[in-house]
Amino acid sequence: MNKKGLAILLRSKMRPLSPVSKVNKLQLAPLDGNKVATQSDSSKTPRDFGQVRESMHSVISMNRKEILDTALSEFSEGYFSLSQENRHKLLLILAREYDLNRSQVRELMKQYVGLEIPKGDGTDEHGHEVEGHLSSFYRIERNLRHALNPMYAVLFERLNTHPGGLKFLATVRADILSIIADENVASIRALDSYLKEKLITWLSPANLELHQITWDDPASLLEKIVAYEAVHPISNLIDLKRRLGTGRRCFGYIHPAIPGEPLIFIEVALMKNIACTIQEVLWHDPPTPECEATTALFYSISSTQPGLAGINLGKFLIKRVIHLVKKDMPNISNFATLSPIPGFMQWLLSKLASSERSVPIFSENILQPHEERALLDAYSESSEGRKGMEVLLQLLSSSNHEWTQSDRFISELQPILLRLCARYLLCEKKRGKALDSVANFHLQNGAMIGRLNWMADRSEKGLTQSGGVMVNYIYSLEHIEDYAQAYFSTGHIQASHDVRNYIEPMEKNEDSIN
Amino acid sequence: MNKKGLAILLRSKMRPLSPVSKVNKLQLAPLDGNKVATQSDSSKTPRDFGQVRESMHSVISMNRKEILDTALSEFSEGYFSLSQENRHKLLLILAREYDLNRSQVRELMKQYVGLEIPKGDGTDEHGHEVEGHLSSFYRIERNLRHALNPMYAVLFERLNTHPGGLKFLATVRADILSIIADENVASIRALDSYLKEKLITWLSPANLELHQITWDDPASLLEKIVAYEAVHPISNLIDLKRRLGTGRRCFGYIHPAIPGEPLIFIEVALMKNIACTIQEVLWHDPPTPECEATTALFYSISSTQPGLAGINLGKFLIKRVIHLVKKDMPNISNFATLSPIPGFMQWLLSKLASSERSVPIFSENILQPHEERALLDAYSESSEGRKGMEVLLQLLSSSNHEWTQSDRFISELQPILLRLCARYLLCEKKRGKALDSVANFHLQNGAMIGRLNWMADRSEKGLTQSGGVMVNYIYSLEHIEDYAQAYFSTGHIQASHDVRNYIEPMEKNEDSIN
Repeated sequence: MNKKGLAILLRSKMRPLSPVSKVNKLQLAPLDGNKVATQSDSSKTPRDFGQVRESMHSVISMNRKEILDTALSEFSEGYFSLSQENRHKLLLILAREYDLNRSQVRELMKQYVGLEIPKGDGTDEHGHEVEGHLSSFYRIERNLRHALNPMYAVLFERLNTHPGGLKFLATVRADILSIIADENVASIRALDSYLKEKLITWLSPANLELHQITWDDPASLLEKIVAYEAVHPISNLIDLKRRLGTGRRCFGYIHPAIPGEPLIFIEVALMKNIACTIQEVLWHDPPTPECEATTALFYSISSTQPGLAGINLGKFLIKRVIHLVKKDMPNISNFATLSPIPGFMQWLLSKLASSERSVPIFSENILQPHEERALLDAYSESSEGRKGMEVLLQLLSSSNHEWTQSDRFISELQPILLRLCARYLLCEKKRGKALDSVANFHLQNGAMIGRLNWMADRSEKGLTQSGGVMVNYIYSLEHIEDYAQAYFSTGHIQASHDVRNYIEPMEKNEDSIN
Repeated sequence: MNKKGLAILLRSKMRPLSPVSKVNKLQLAPLDGNKVATQSDSSKTPRDFGQVRESMHSVISMNRKEILDTALSEFSEGYFSLSQENRHKLLLILAREYDLNRSQVRELMKQYVGLEIPKGDGTDEHGHEVEGHLSSFYRIERNLRHALNPMYAVLFERLNTHPGGLKFLATVRADILSIIADENVASIRALDSYLKEKLITWLSPANLELHQITWDDPASLLEKIVAYEAVHPISNLIDLKRRLGTGRRCFGYIHPAIPGEPLIFIEVALMKNIACTIQEVLWHDPPTPECEATTALFYSISSTQPGLAGINLGKFLIKRVIHLVKKDMPNISNFATLSPIPGFMQWLLSKLASSERSVPIFSENILQPHEERALLDAYSESSEGRKGMEVLLQLLSSSNHEWTQSDRFISELQPILLRLCARYLLCEKKRGKALDSVANFHLQNGAMIGRLNWMADRSEKGLTQSGGVMVNYIYSLEHIEDYAQAYFSTGHIQASHDVRNYIEPMEKNEDSIN
């Protein structure tokens, strides 16, 4: 069943909002995030670019509140009706023509530089005089703080307090990011950096409500979970119900201005042991009785707003969920993930391909001699004269992952791929941080690499991205902060002895990998 | 029964949290606002001033997250244990020694002034060159924005994301306001102005949840309503239940970081007509059947955090409640308040007292000749040779408001006090705005003065503050924004014909009072 079909099924089968939440959680109709979301479909009446630009200008320059509300709705509806190209054009205008007033800034600076800095810390015997003198500093500093805000700050702030505006701003930021991906324009980067800072403030964890998502939630919310689950797609109603049922937890962060739609959510399985394969997490039945569980396994974390890229809500979410689960279920003492290694195969295949073109890749060989022999033996058919790496490339890039149909290939490839995967996770860096995005996410949150699992995700996506390997990142409560700090300051990646062992013959038994 | 007793009664009689809210509205224990609230009682282990100062310094200067959490808790607990005097001392240190780095600011300014402003709007034919040139501006402007933040910004921001921190910051601001009330210190004013701006951002209406408070809410929340109801104290459990029952509504704004405690709440009565007395709102039984109601009467609005003074949450609350009620109950078409005039008697008594000392007060006489005669007649006992104003002062300042025991005085005083009240509301200004704080609040929200009501609040407080008079401010949906705008820009006070009539003989039939 496709997602739309499921959503319709969910809508028709779910029971309505429970009376308590209906009475107690009020939201004005125009505040409903859905309104803005559907505007993108419903109000695609083609609108003149000039009109939208005009409404943007009104929003920035107006004073009166009522007409302002109208202008804000006008602008956001108009924006949604624009083509991608016109949106880009509009954002460039915003970045360039609604920048800050540089002559005003310079004027204030001139006044400021003319002031004399009082001696001491302002607490000397002439306290009052110093205070009086300082007040000129305070005044100009305050004015400068305001003058240094670009004019488009007004647009962002007004949108933020406008119903549906926060979500609209996330859409705008997604558009800004797509311009930056196309072309590196300084003014657009400044616009992005300013909006990102604002969004970080507005989406501070203090403003987010941790919500346990259950089968009792409205279908309109559950539908979002189905639509946005990015790691292990939810295949049907039974699948969804199971993920919210006994032995499972699902938590999301909800912002009051975007009700009924978590910005990010995490799925947790309560288990006896740290699972080795995603199949057992998703499909084994029945689940472990909750009273026997000792492990909380985070098996999926998905964010729903592309426009919030670079704003790490996941870190806070994981921390709060750990604390919450620990408090509710004191018998749970292990916190771990079962995660994909989404960049592994792309990295490996490009390395193998460039080695075919005789570009050296590692200082050492990709394959160790005994691995190469075993591989050539197994791949008897026409392997004469070929090198192990060619064979490996051919196997791994075969359509439909044919190698996974053969027990022999599976067992020959196991040590090779696990060793290379450990090497990828532990040694491949970009600007001093782990190259793999999921690894980088958990490492910066303070996790360690605990275990690699062979044939842990046999889905199409799991094989294509991670060669079927999955990794358990371990959140060890007493070490989270130390590990996060070490990773942050030196890029040090903490890993278990088992994982380090895969590559230690090369790394000469270093205690850990930097 | 005192408030504490009622709170205990509420605790024991209320049913526990309903299962749905228990499951769906999770809050980590340390996020519970109560923790911080009770800290002020429980952790009054005297703490050394030096220790608290040290922990404040750590919070501002530290890097590591885990120890930071400890330092933040340490600091807030320590702060609560300080005497009022030591808190003031600490806040002065914060304002003066954790100010901004002025040499860094000047250094950046020097760099900035050295840059040449590119011609045009950056979109000319050499677009890229201009962009490249602008990026130096963007960089220094961004650095300056950061450098212009005082060091104490870090403390505020870290507290804001710390469990219980937002509420703690409200306490800190209340302390800052009390220092300013004592002494006008420039650095403390700068500290206050900075913190206030931050709080306005963090308490943006976009971050607040509108919550309908009902009898099904937890006792811990209802207890807060009892404790903070500032206008018409809640006298017992029946009173509270009635205010949350049929024909009544109560709405509050709740911030996710201060759960279970509205920052501000409003009480609404659904009625057939705009009520003339608070007695009928609070005590008439049974209430109007909701289907017959045409009027939503706002009879009380209370904020719970003294530290949020000057941050107008009420305006947004009233607007949202109007929209919500209108949507839920289309038969409701009148929105009005029944409000006290808290500054009326203080103003009048001081005017009368100064007129006794022969200081002229108004350009006209306080009493009109026929009023003076009637008053002296009624006050026959020893009124010989005395002036009407003396008699008025004596009557109004008598203990226990004796005049309210006499029908004759009540009827003689009615035209006098209503006229003077209209004069007070319409003409007495401070910095161009209505002198009366409640009037100023509703007028800036866009209400008009609709009707004065005689003997509308016979409570001790109502007689002492407002001479028993109450006023209906009318929120007329189609005019709210115009009225708010006119009041904001020119101080124009919109009033009904009836109210203007009280003073029109003096004001020569102007259309309205400026």
